Parts: sequence; C-alpha cells; structure tokens
Amino acid sequence: MAHYYTPVGAHLGPDQICTFTVWAPFRKAVSLVVIAPLPAEYPMARDENGYWHYRMAATPTGLQYLYKLDNDLLRPDPASRYQPGGVHGPSAVVQPAYPHWTDDDWRGLELKDLVLYELHTGTFSPQRNFQGIIARLSYLEKLGVNAIEIMPVAQFSGTRNWGYDGVYPFAVQHNYGSVNGLKEVVNAAHKHGIAVILDVVYNHLGPEGNYFADFGPYFTSKYKTPWADAVNFDDAYCDAVRDYFLQNALMWLDEFHIDGLRLDAVHAIWDCSARHFVAELSEAVSVLERRLGRRKLLIAEIDYNAPRYIDPVEQGGYGLAGQWVDEFHHALHTMLTGELDGYYEDFNGIAHLAKAYKDNYVYTGQYSPHRKRRFGDLPRNHHYSDFIVFSQNHDQVGNRLLGDRLSATLDLPALKLAAAAYLLAPQTPMIFMGEEYGETKPFQFFTSHGDAELIAALREGRRREFASFNWQGAVPDPQSENTFYGSALSWEPNEALLECYRSLIALRRNTPALQNQGPGCIAVEILNEKALLLQRKLEEKPALFIYLNFSKDAINVTNVNGYTLNAVFTTHTQPLPAEIAVHAGFQLPAMSASVFAVKE
Amino acid sequence: MAHYYTPVGAHLGPDQICTFTVWAPFRKAVSLVVIAPLPAEYPMARDENGYWHYRMAATPTGLQYLYKLDNDLLRPDPASRYQPGGVHGPSAVVQPAYPHWTDDDWRGLELKDLVLYELHTGTFSPQRNFQGIIARLSYLEKLGVNAIEIMPVAQFSGTRNWGYDGVYPFAVQHNYGSVNGLKEVVNAAHKHGIAVILDVVYNHLGPEGNYFADFGPYFTSKYKTPWADAVNFDDAYCDAVRDYFLQNALMWLDEFHIDGLRLDAVHAIWDCSARHFVAELSEAVSVLERRLGRRKLLIAEIDYNAPRYIDPVEQGGYGLAGQWVDEFHHALHTMLTGELDGYYEDFNGIAHLAKAYKDNYVYTGQYSPHRKRRFGDLPRNHHYSDFIVFSQNHDQVGNRLLGDRLSATLDLPALKLAAAAYLLAPQTPMIFMGEEYGETKPFQFFTSHGDAELIAALREGRRREFASFNWQGAVPDPQSENTFYGSALSWEPNEALLECYRSLIALRRNTPALQNQGPGCIAVEILNEKALLLQRKLEEKPALFIYLNFSKDAINVTNVNGYTLNAVFTTHTQPLPAEIAVHAGFQLPAMSASVFAVKE
Repeated sequence: MAHYYTPVGAHLGPDQICTFTVWAPFRKAVSLVVIAPLPAEYPMARDENGYWHYRMAATPTGLQYLYKLDNDLLRPDPASRYQPGGVHGPSAVVQPAYPHWTDDDWRGLELKDLVLYELHTGTFSPQRNFQGIIARLSYLEKLGVNAIEIMPVAQFSGTRNWGYDGVYPFAVQHNYGSVNGLKEVVNAAHKHGIAVILDVVYNHLGPEGNYFADFGPYFTSKYKTPWADAVNFDDAYCDAVRDYFLQNALMWLDEFHIDGLRLDAVHAIWDCSARHFVAELSEAVSVLERRLGRRKLLIAEIDYNAPRYIDPVEQGGYGLAGQWVDEFHHALHTMLTGELDGYYEDFNGIAHLAKAYKDNYVYTGQYSPHRKRRFGDLPRNHHYSDFIVFSQNHDQVGNRLLGDRLSATLDLPALKLAAAAYLLAPQTPMIFMGEEYGETKPFQFFTSHGDAELIAALREGRRREFASFNWQGAVPDPQSENTFYGSALSWEPNEALLECYRSLIALRRNTPALQNQGPGCIAVEILNEKALLLQRKLEEKPALFIYLNFSKDAINVTNVNGYTLNAVFTTHTQPLPAEIAVHAGFQLPAMSASVFAVKE
Repeated sequence: MAHYYTPVGAHLGPDQICTFTVWAPFRKAVSLVVIAPLPAEYPMARDENGYWHYRMAATPTGLQYLYKLDNDLLRPDPASRYQPGGVHGPSAVVQPAYPHWTDDDWRGLELKDLVLYELHTGTFSPQRNFQGIIARLSYLEKLGVNAIEIMPVAQFSGTRNWGYDGVYPFAVQHNYGSVNGLKEVVNAAHKHGIAVILDVVYNHLGPEGNYFADFGPYFTSKYKTPWADAVNFDDAYCDAVRDYFLQNALMWLDEFHIDGLRLDAVHAIWDCSARHFVAELSEAVSVLERRLGRRKLLIAEIDYNAPRYIDPVEQGGYGLAGQWVDEFHHALHTMLTGELDGYYEDFNGIAHLAKAYKDNYVYTGQYSPHRKRRFGDLPRNHHYSDFIVFSQNHDQVGNRLLGDRLSATLDLPALKLAAAAYLLAPQTPMIFMGEEYGETKPFQFFTSHGDAELIAALREGRRREFASFNWQGAVPDPQSENTFYGSALSWEPNEALLECYRSLIALRRNTPALQNQGPGCIAVEILNEKALLLQRKLEEKPALFIYLNFSKDAINVTNVNGYTLNAVFTTHTQPLPAEIAVHAGFQLPAMSASVFAVKE
C-alpha cells in the first residue's frame, strides 16, 4: 500500500531538472514564482487529484521560489526543503544528494540496545547548531549513549523554539546550520556508533507561518485539539494530507539516514478510519527497512495507555516499535520530590512505582483521580524495551513553571538514585541533555514568534497551564532571549554525578541480566513505603538484586531470597559489603541504589 | 471487567423494596419527589462516585416520581423504565419480574442461520403496537423469517417516531403497549422459533425531552456529530456514561430475553481510549451469554468499512457478531434503478456488485469519489454471514425524498430479481417490512415533537439532506399525522411476489450450498455489464450456479464451467430448461434470477 503518493515539493534531479509539485485542490490557478536568481513566473498544470506541477530544466541549487494561488496570494511551499529567510520568506531548492556519506555499513540499532539522549539543537552546545552536536559526539560515546534523540528541527518561526511550532515539516531550521548540517550530524553519529532519532510533529502545525489552509483542507473541524483544528487524517481530501506526512517520515529515514522517529503526541493524530495513519506509517517504514536493510524505529509519545499503538499490525495494532512512558516518570518523580499537584495527584507511593516497573503503565484500567475516569489497559506480550523511561525530559523539566531540573531541588545522592532508578530498569532509558552532569540551569519554554497577538496569547496560556500546580514565582517570558540563553547548557559538570552515569550505563550495557528485557525478566518487591527491590532475571532465575531506597534514612534489610549476594555497584559513597550470606542483615544507605549479583 | 457498575434507575425487588439511583456528580442536593400515588419528597444520599441513592420500602408498582436537582429543577429519571405521560412527565416504577415466560428452552440463534425482518412497531400493524406484532408472527414464520429486528422502542417525544429520537433508553415507548408488551412479543416470537433483535441508539440522544445535561456530563465537546454534542465515552466522567449504556444493553438481553442488539451508527460512538466502548460491550455480552447459555448477537450499523468492529477482541477487534453493509445495497440499488446521485455516485456498474458479493465491502482501500478519500479496508477471515445485506431497509427507503420503496419504480420481475439477489447471497439477508409482498405505500420520515423550533429545524434539515440528489417533489412534512399513516403497511399483498419470497427463503434455508457461508464459499463471474454468475460451493467444489440478469433484455449464455446443470429455481414465469449440458447455450430471461444445481 505504500508509495502510491504524489511526491510533493521541489525535487532536483542529478540532471538539474527540477519538478515542482504542490497540492491545492480548490485553486483555479497556481503558478511558480521564481524570486532568485532571476525573477520569473510559470503557470502550473493541475492533475485530476488537485496537485499542480511544473518541470524546470537547468534549475540552479538554491533557486528561491513561492507559489501564487489564484493570481493573488504568494505563499512559500508547504513542502519546502529550506526557508533561508524564515517562515514567511521564499522557499529554496536544495540538492538532495549528499556525497559525503560514510555509513554504508551502518545497519541501525534495536530499541532494546539503546541508551537514548534527548537534546535540543539550539541549547545543547555553545555553537547552538548542528556543528555543536557533532563536536560532542565523542563525549556522548564516552558517556555510553548510543542514540541521540533530537528535538524537532522542522522550520519554525524565528530562531528560538523547542521545535513544536514547526510549520515546514520538510525544511531543516535555517539557523541550525547549512542545508546539509543534519546529514553531517547523522553521518558523524554513525561513525561513533550512535543512532539518531528525530522528533517529528504530525499532530498539529505551528501557529506562525502556517499557510496550509491557503493550499487545501489540511485541517478538519471534526475533532478538537489543544492547539487548533486537527490535522485532517480521516475527513474528505485526507489522502493528500496523509501522503504528505508519510513522505515526510520517509524523507528523514531514507534521504537523511535518520534511524528512527519520535512521533509527537500521537494521541492527537485523530483518525477513526479503517486504517489508522500511524499503522499506515509503520507499514510504509517496514517496507523501507526491508529495502534499505537498516532498522528504522518508530517511537510514540502517547498519553492513552493504549497498547494498540505498539501492538503488531497483524494483531490489530499500529505496529510502532516503542513509546514513551510518562507514568514511569511521574511515579519516580513523586517518590523523589514528594510533589502531588496537577497530574502528579494520580501518583503517590511506592506501589505506583513498583507497578510502573512491572506493568510499564501505572494505570491499566483503574480509576484515575486526575483524569476522572478509569484509564488505560495492560500491555500484553511486550518486551520491556518497548517502553522508554526517564527521570527528566524536555517536557517534564520545561513544562514546570520555572523549568527547573531535578538538580535544583535534589542533592547528589538523590540525583544518583534517580539515575539508577531508570538506567537499571528493564525499560529503555533516555537521558535529558545535561542531566548526566547535573546541569543546574533550567530548561524553560522559549519562542521567538513575530506575531504580537500570538505572543500575548502564549504568555497567557503558559500561566493557565500552571494553575493546577502550587508552583511559586513569575512565569518566565517565553519570548525573551534571556529565557533561551538561560536554558542553554553551561557544560559545567558535576564530575561525581557524571561518573555515576557512566558507571550505570556501562553496567547496563555489560550485564546480561540487565540486557534481558523480555516478559518475566523482572520481579518487584515492595520493602517498605520508601524502598523497592528489583530482581532482574536470567533464564527465569534471579541474577541481579537492585535495592532502591528513597528514604532520607538508612534502612536495614535481610537477605531473605535464598541466594548469597555479591556487591556489584552502589550509588552511595559508602561501599557495599562484598558478600551477603543468606538470611544476613545489611543496611541500605539513605537515598541510594545498591546492586548485588547472585553468587554463582 | 463487566458488572462493576452502579445499577441506575428504580429497581423494585420482590419484597417491594425499591432502590432509586441516579448519577448527578455536580449537584449539591438531589431528592426523590414522589408524584403519585401520594406526593412526598425524600432527600437522597450521594456516594463518592457522584451517584445519589434512596431506598424505599413498600413501594407500589407504578409509583410515579421525578428527581429534584439542587432544590430547583424537577426532572424525570434518565434511567426511567416507563414514562406514562411521555418524555416530559414523571417516571414510573415497573415490576421487572415477568411471570409468563415460556421460553426456558430457547438458546438463541446464530447469525449464519438468520433471515431477518426489520419492522417498525407503529406502522407494521393496524394495531400500531406490540400486540400487532404478535398477531403477525405466524405470517412471518410461514414466510420463513426467523428473526425480527425491531426499530428502536426507547421512549421518544410524542407518539410517532422512527425511534432514533429516543431519550429514555431504558423505557419502552408508552403508546406501544403495556409495560410488559415487549416481553410478550419476545416470548411469543420464541414460541414461533423467531429471534428478536432490538435496535438501540448509543451514539446520541434525541432532541426533545433530553434532560441528560442537567444530571451530569453525558456529553463531550471533544467530537462533533451530525446530531449534537457527542455522547461522552472517553472524556472525564465517562465511566458513569459507559456503565449507563452497558446496563441498558444487558437489560434488554437479560430481563427482556432479547436475542441481539442492532447498534445504531457505531461509527458515531467516539472513543479513542484504551478499550473502545464497543469492545467493552461485546465482552460484557459474552459474559452474559455464558451465564445464560443463550446466544446474544451484537450487530453494528457502521459507515467505516473498518473490519476492526467485527474482528475478534483477541485480534485487536471490538468483537461484534456482524454488521450491516449499506454498500451491498447501494451496488444492488444502482443496478436495479440506474440512480447515480448523492452517495450513489460511488456505485456504478456490475463490478461493484460483484465486489460486494465477493469482499462484502465495495470500498476496501480505493478512492471514493463521494467521500473524496481512499476508503475502507478488506475484512479478513470472516464468514460471509457476519455481513447483513438487504435490498431495502428503513433508511434506504425512508431517507429518500418521498420514502418510496422499490415497488414504486420497479415491475414485478425486477422486484423478484431484487429479492433473489440478496436472499441467495452468502451474506445474511434482511427484509424490510412489507417489501415481501410488494407494499406500494411509502415509508417516510415521521415525528411528533412538541417543540416548535425543533420542528422547523427538522423540516429544513430534511430539505438540505436531499440537495445532492435529483429527487423531484415536495418533502413530506415529518410532523403531519398523514405522513405517519401514509407510511403504515396496507397489508394488500402482491401474492406472486410474496410467493417468490417464500420460495427464495425456503431455498436458502434448505439448500446446503446456500447455507455454506465460510470463506471461499462463493466465486463471482461477470458475464456482461448487466449480468453476474454466482457460484456457490460445497467442500470447495461448485454446487449451485446463480445467474442474475439485470438487463431489460434476455441474454444468451453458454454453460462453460464444465458441469451439467439441473434447473432449481427461477424468478421468471418462463420455466428453466430442466437440464443444461456442458457447453450448451441457454437463455437468461430479462430481469431474472436463475438457479441451477450441479448434476451429481
């Protein structure tokens, strides 16, 4: 079923022949208006599906153009590959061939083998761009990370944005580097053995520079979203919209050698038709995987606790490789901080964290006080590695009133415990940039829109979002440059914490019991209201015992499980006893993770 | 997961103790106001889930009551079991025990064995009520029908309505008979070997007498429906709403001995949560089936060509037993009438009818000009009997401008051909009341609302609905009594047509090849643009050859399939040749169906 679509945008061939294609089904006339190098206008021809076409010989790379709709509106290309002057200016023709690829042998990585690292291009490095990522790949490799997850890079308004306001899904943000900058990142990452996951947004389009409605019914009023009209995935004329986003996904995975996509808020991709867009996407990506012989991962951000998104297509699911689990974060966060406001009201106590380890979701059908309904379902027959867990991420930090990281409120032992709690989980871990060295600067919400009304609405919206929390202080101004620069990494590491992350990642990647992520690989025991024991298994037998003590006091435990234990690792400065006999008592230091192996 | 709900409504026990339960989560005070026999008011007690309770001793059957909300609004019970004075008046307590059941041995019927008969209680018989149905059960049994499908009987405004404006889903329409009238129908039907399917509406509630919003968030603005706000199946507070409809379904199937439900427009039951309401319903009904040892059928009306509704729950589906297939109707209708306006634009030519026979759906992923998108998916591994087909039904007749039946435009040979075309299909057939004897009166849309604004809007709405068709004439006034009486069956049969229906049903029910409805039971061959050959198989070998000729001319065909054929049945007055040798030519009369058996 894949690849039936009409390729949209300006496609430059090796012969410098460029085909321009744009969907505008209700327009009576569309022309291609060349802005540079030499102004010119060419009427386009409409096909029966509402696409307009023009074929240009001897097209120079970098040619700038707009589309003229009904001899009236001048608009950039919705499938623009480059917006050199930002969201309101002309689109530019790019050269898709990149001659410098050196990753022919790269086959991609499986989700189960990943340690992910989420980063935002503009604030990750002092360079604020793709080159700054490349410069830190050695650092990441040494840390033990083998996948970076880059927050959206699709062209957004202005130069400072998390990326979720992108309005040209096919264009790389103009101030993140040259047209080939992202390809250089991917090529360099692969050299370091690091996969690249790209965050893409298919559930909405940003508020400024959003000219989609001028072209066609990209939106539908059938559904409501928190942002605007929903993207039209199942209403009349949706084929072209679905194809547009399918092409976008395949462009990143194929032309850019991206190893996977993190699909933003797939619960807001409204589609009640016979084949859900997400299922169609995962089938198209499977076809690409087979053609390329490279693993391509689709990972959802999803709010539903609905296993259908990650269930296999042949079992009625949508076939995604994995999903983020915010609930693991919330359960861990409340244990670490004691916060119980807003959506944290749904999470309290050690039992919820234990359930997140065991069942991946906390809510699997029981009543949620925050959502005011029974919520979720139990995922069945999944590997734990299908679920991405974290102690922080851009949302969980940045959508706090002050954008404060855990490092702002927790001391070093607690930060190490937070790290161990998810890096030793059977789920797939993800680090948020700077977390590993205890970055103390916040990560706040920042924008650089040009529209005064939008800016005012956004400021008001941020204030409303925090109403249900008891956070104190003034909401930082998203538009201020200071908010952006104040969120950029300082690269002033807490070496002790960084060393702990390195050790935990090395332990994870080198310990067979931690690499076993199949069903039944973990047993979870609640020791008391502040402490958990995770038993990690190999061949169905306990192999590793991980004690997590969230208490501010040391607690005494007894080795009741019938195995002699050997010390492996502790997050605490105080060393563990080298060997613990069956029935022996021992102490778990306050705020610590202690790892023991079953003695052979 | 079933039966966790709080039983709503007034439940009278054998000890005459009555428990009153109503959900009103945002109300500060709710009281039970008794209207008759003796006026009284009792404050109710709220539980933690927002339900209010009162327990009354020595409750007389027929006690009339209202609920008073916040010492202000007086409202009937949303779960009222009887509305003796219509939708605005008090609710009445009923005696749920019915002492006259004689169907202890009844086990229900399988969909594959059914010949369905759709009827509307108010217009089916001169009695205009349940007794009128009972009086005609012998007639239906003789016709060969073994299931009646009763259009909705939930209390609606006024006394004349198709039933889709019901606003008390638990109450039987007050002018359809006594409180026990429906139970008498079911009991009598079972005596005749006839199952009873009830049409229920869970996707919306009617416009007049709809006081639901006064009680609680029964609706959500997340989704739009053609009628009003969508019923709240997945938003905050939806648990009580889901439970309300689950209880309703189980009430009909359990207390009323109803054999199955026809779920109106399940595509408008908007639910994106982890477990779709329809899946939850089919699981609850499975539990009931096991408890009762009786087959209970859930049949969907559905517009999506999305097999997930009928796929088994363990394969990610919603587990319904079957669904209506409007597309079969449309393909057949265009062959019979040549109409190509409105949604008929999607259907033209013999290939679409052939596809409907073979694939159940016509649109299984290809582009639909009417919907302006690629539409549908192919159902896999289903028996043909999971799909309900018809040449007419209440919608396909009644939603024509004049409500004209096929009998208004087709002659007798064509009506017989129309009957054979679906009664000999591998899908499960459904007759629309009166069709079998060639009723010439129309079936028009009728209402008897009391609200002047609503009445005006409805008249305007009907006119708009017909805009895309080229139908001529004035739209009948839905509110006029004449429209209702003009739609009541005349019971003036065309005996020749009636005899043809009897013969076709008998042929269907007594011929093993027609009873085989498994995958692969049919091969379809297009003979020319007006004629089809259906090969029905037994043990994978051709057993029955059904020639359908929609042409106004006789056509000559040759028996090329390598089998000697024996005449079985024809809809035409001219008899078939008794035997047709291999390679022999023979004639199919104009507008006829001819059935041959492979010679043993």
